[in-house]
Amino acid sequence: MRIGFVGLGAMGRGLAGRLAGAGHTVRAWSRSARSRDLIPEGVVVVPKPLDLADSEVLISMLAHDGAVRAVFLAEGLLAALAPGTIHINMATVSVDLARDLAKLHEARGAAYVASPVLGRPDAAAEGRLHLLVAGPAAAITRLEELWAVLGQRVWRFGERPESANAVKIATNLTLACAIEAMGEAAGLAGAYGVEAGPYLDMLTQTLFSSPAFKLYGALIAEDRFEPPGFRLALGLKDVNLALEAGAEAAMPLPFGAVLRDRFLDCVAHGEEGRDWCALVMAGRRQAGRA
Amino acid sequence: MRIGFVGLGAMGRGLAGRLAGAGHTVRAWSRSARSRDLIPEGVVVVPKPLDLADSEVLISMLAHDGAVRAVFLAEGLLAALAPGTIHINMATVSVDLARDLAKLHEARGAAYVASPVLGRPDAAAEGRLHLLVAGPAAAITRLEELWAVLGQRVWRFGERPESANAVKIATNLTLACAIEAMGEAAGLAGAYGVEAGPYLDMLTQTLFSSPAFKLYGALIAEDRFEPPGFRLALGLKDVNLALEAGAEAAMPLPFGAVLRDRFLDCVAHGEEGRDWCALVMAGRRQAGRA
Amino acid sequence: MRIGFVGLGAMGRGLAGRLAGAGHTVRAWSRSARSRDLIPEGVVVVPKPLDLADSEVLISMLAHDGAVRAVFLAEGLLAALAPGTIHINMATVSVDLARDLAKLHEARGAAYVASPVLGRPDAAAEGRLHLLVAGPAAAITRLEELWAVLGQRVWRFGERPESANAVKIATNLTLACAIEAMGEAAGLAGAYGVEAGPYLDMLTQTLFSSPAFKLYGALIAEDRFEPPGFRLALGLKDVNLALEAGAEAAMPLPFGAVLRDRFLDCVAHGEEGRDWCALVMAGRRQAGRA
Amino acid sequence: MRIGFVGLGAMGRGLAGRLAGAGHTVRAWSRSARSRDLIPEGVVVVPKPLDLADSEVLISMLAHDGAVRAVFLAEGLLAALAPGTIHINMATVSVDLARDLAKLHEARGAAYVASPVLGRPDAAAEGRLHLLVAGPAAAITRLEELWAVLGQRVWRFGERPESANAVKIATNLTLACAIEAMGEAAGLAGAYGVEAGPYLDMLTQTLFSSPAFKLYGALIAEDRFEPPGFRLALGLKDVNLALEAGAEAAMPLPFGAVLRDRFLDCVAHGEEGRDWCALVMAGRRQAGRA
Repeated sequence: MRIGFVGLGAMGRGLAGRLAGAGHTVRAWSRSARSRDLIPEGVVVVPKPLDLADSEVLISMLAHDGAVRAVFLAEGLLAALAPGTIHINMATVSVDLARDLAKLHEARGAAYVASPVLGRPDAAAEGRLHLLVAGPAAAITRLEELWAVLGQRVWRFGERPESANAVKIATNLTLACAIEAMGEAAGLAGAYGVEAGPYLDMLTQTLFSSPAFKLYGALIAEDRFEPPGFRLALGLKDVNLALEAGAEAAMPLPFGAVLRDRFLDCVAHGEEGRDWCALVMAGRRQAGRA
Repeated sequence: MRIGFVGLGAMGRGLAGRLAGAGHTVRAWSRSARSRDLIPEGVVVVPKPLDLADSEVLISMLAHDGAVRAVFLAEGLLAALAPGTIHINMATVSVDLARDLAKLHEARGAAYVASPVLGRPDAAAEGRLHLLVAGPAAAITRLEELWAVLGQRVWRFGERPESANAVKIATNLTLACAIEAMGEAAGLAGAYGVEAGPYLDMLTQTLFSSPAFKLYGALIAEDRFEPPGFRLALGLKDVNLALEAGAEAAMPLPFGAVLRDRFLDCVAHGEEGRDWCALVMAGRRQAGRA
Repeated sequence: MRIGFVGLGAMGRGLAGRLAGAGHTVRAWSRSARSRDLIPEGVVVVPKPLDLADSEVLISMLAHDGAVRAVFLAEGLLAALAPGTIHINMATVSVDLARDLAKLHEARGAAYVASPVLGRPDAAAEGRLHLLVAGPAAAITRLEELWAVLGQRVWRFGERPESANAVKIATNLTLACAIEAMGEAAGLAGAYGVEAGPYLDMLTQTLFSSPAFKLYGALIAEDRFEPPGFRLALGLKDVNLALEAGAEAAMPLPFGAVLRDRFLDCVAHGEEGRDWCALVMAGRRQAGRA
Repeated sequence: MRIGFVGLGAMGRGLAGRLAGAGHTVRAWSRSARSRDLIPEGVVVVPKPLDLADSEVLISMLAHDGAVRAVFLAEGLLAALAPGTIHINMATVSVDLARDLAKLHEARGAAYVASPVLGRPDAAAEGRLHLLVAGPAAAITRLEELWAVLGQRVWRFGERPESANAVKIATNLTLACAIEAMGEAAGLAGAYGVEAGPYLDMLTQTLFSSPAFKLYGALIAEDRFEPPGFRLALGLKDVNLALEAGAEAAMPLPFGAVLRDRFLDCVAHGEEGRDWCALVMAGRRQAGRA
């Protein structure tokens, strides 16, 4: 297939490289000059987004709503798409943006498919991502061969693209909850003489023996917040996406509200560039144990 | 060994039965007449707690602090113990009580070992419990053969019994956090067209594929809150234990505080007898989606 | 003075009328056709915002950030102002908008003064508003004769317009806190046999004998939430302004976070059009006492 | 009247002195030897609580539930009261204790009247307290001449003594809410260039011009947390009383929950002996502005 790829960050590079490796024609554009040195083999870089307008499938993996709006709306990529194009947006964006884009693509005769992912750059490069997919069924079905390259499993959540974004946002909220929960639990054990390491070892080998708890549990136990696997500032962005999606649906999210304050506390203490597991530092400070 | 067993509830019966089955002499006492009909094979019931005072090892599995204080302090079992006796308290009790009992046993020349457990009655009966153990090292080591009967693995948390209780309390807090987190996440997905079942399926087969998330995720997805696996009223008790332990250590636990209000909301709506996963109903009510 | 007035809602009408009554030349524009029937005596209505570009002093009292941006930026009123014009923005807008507008006015050679107010439409019409004023000192001083017409007292908060907006937003946050605090306190008294009326009477005649507590206390005691004095939906808007201003300054506001969830609960239950004192209904529902 | 007075702390001394000054026979007992040097004129100190058993009216003003239980239950004063005695408990105690004592007095043929107060020691000494009174109507009515000496106004809350305690506890909760609300509001204003002094001046001269806001506003504006007017540790005790009373009634109190964490944060930072307005320090620390 003739694929256009927008966004060559750590995630995008892995995915674009896999697509090229699988024999697809992949042209890509990236806003960041820096990352142009890191072009995956077989991927051709184009000078501007509009050069990708004639792709059969357009895949975007941009950092936030603003970047998506800039490329697709302000710079006009959406308005230049040929009818019949399928756009797969793999980024974690707001439900609002997903809804707007779905309508605008439909008006243009193009299909908008949301496919945010679970997994980090290494998983992206190795085809181990979980793909959370929602959008027009016909388009999703037509892309079967791509999904197999992009990740290990497709989880379908219906025809409304924003559903997949809500799923992704809710899942990141759950991850942040796991961090805070481990922080409070390990703090409590610590107050009674049990160190975080042995406590979280037990926790993540018994009732909570899942990838998320194991990964974050180890980071928390070892105070290993640098280099960041996922920056705390991005975690705050995602919790805000959750709170906004909740607000639009008139749904209080009290854990979300606590998390937002925890993130702000960390930002106030200069930790926005650390791994988001540094969230537990807010609790330690509050208890005078930082 | 000559074992005395106090408390023949669902957990206690399974454990006492295993000990008798392993060839130990097990005499038991239970406050509840009702459960006397359910005596495990090989276990001899005695008429009053004091009849167990001459045990080599005394194991108790009572419902709450009050029951422990009643039997060991008010009814005088502790004061009647022979020096050298080892008392293993397997219940989820407060750190305060653990500390008090440790001192009183020591004064008496007896050893107090805390060993709260992870697992439900079926796991108790089948030797699959995880044992969270803290207390005098010599006593714990001497009991090696018993631990192998009581559970699948011993997790040791030092010499202060209350450490094991803090670990247990912190872990139950984490479980309650998991329920609330899934409630908020599934609620958010639900507001954007994704039902709890498919959402929680995905969640608990990917990042959160642990026993706790799988078990509770299924209950939440199916609104299966009766019969209760663990009563909501007991969950409230345990969150209060966490908050009290935190308060004593001057440690704010904001997720714990949110959970307490959630539990009270459920009690106000008559749900104290349902499974504690019914906690998610509080969120649904708040969002007008109950 | 030759005054242009933008926004003839209930507040704006009172203020524009007072200015005309004091002998100033007042031309006004309002987006809402409906309110054109309610033009205060002596005020001349102009057909479009740009007709006010040649005013010496431009006063705006619009409903929210969006309306201000529409009139001053999108419709170009700001770009058409003569150098030397003073713009007094009396609305409750975000600190972000205030900062943006201050810069844009300065670039244009105009002065931007923020003057949000304390008081309701009757106070506006009778000159009893408190004016929270910040902006260029020279401009504020030059307007002395206007301030005396617009309100009973000027409270000055320095030269940065957004300071006055922060003060207004913080004060509305305090008002919402007062409502929730009375709701919790009256709820607690109520659970032990004391009705809200006698309880709040005592409270607001002793330690809390202030205008805000007296006014809201009476509404809460009598469940008098309609017609709204201040719509709950506007209260949510203002709490969001506080949370956003806090977030920008990396400042957690835990009472603010609780209030946001309370407001969302009320919106979920169809109460956005009631007086914001209906916030207490959320607490009553949670306690099963609605 | 022949009055027995239990508890000669700062509040009790003022009250006992007023009663003696009004011509009543006042005998008093105090647990603290230290305060025996500070006996008000006309008050006779007795060596032990039981010496007061034959009083017509027994007034107690003790520090907390534990002290009341010690004197009236453990030391047997209640059991020694003559039938017909009226006991006025003026302390801030739990609703639970009030209910227990009401029953025990009734069984004894004595009357139990709760009369917690609003006001500090100077108000007690000058007869300016507000008296929050509940209990048997006949007893309250019979004491009319005493009430006029004890305070400036009686607020009656029915026949169940615990109602008055709930009112007092709810009011202290409201006071703590006021402190936190001012802390958040002043913090927000401060983040945008407005100092706490001018901000709180404005606030407490306009919408919040009540005694509580004025007093606490001044302490917060000036960081005047020592010497304490009311110790932070006592504030925590009272918020816990509110949370417990709420829990018993299955009533979530989310502001109360936030406050508890704030108090614990302050205790963790060694501030339990400062004025409870030091609560605002927790917010400043969270925002990195302490």
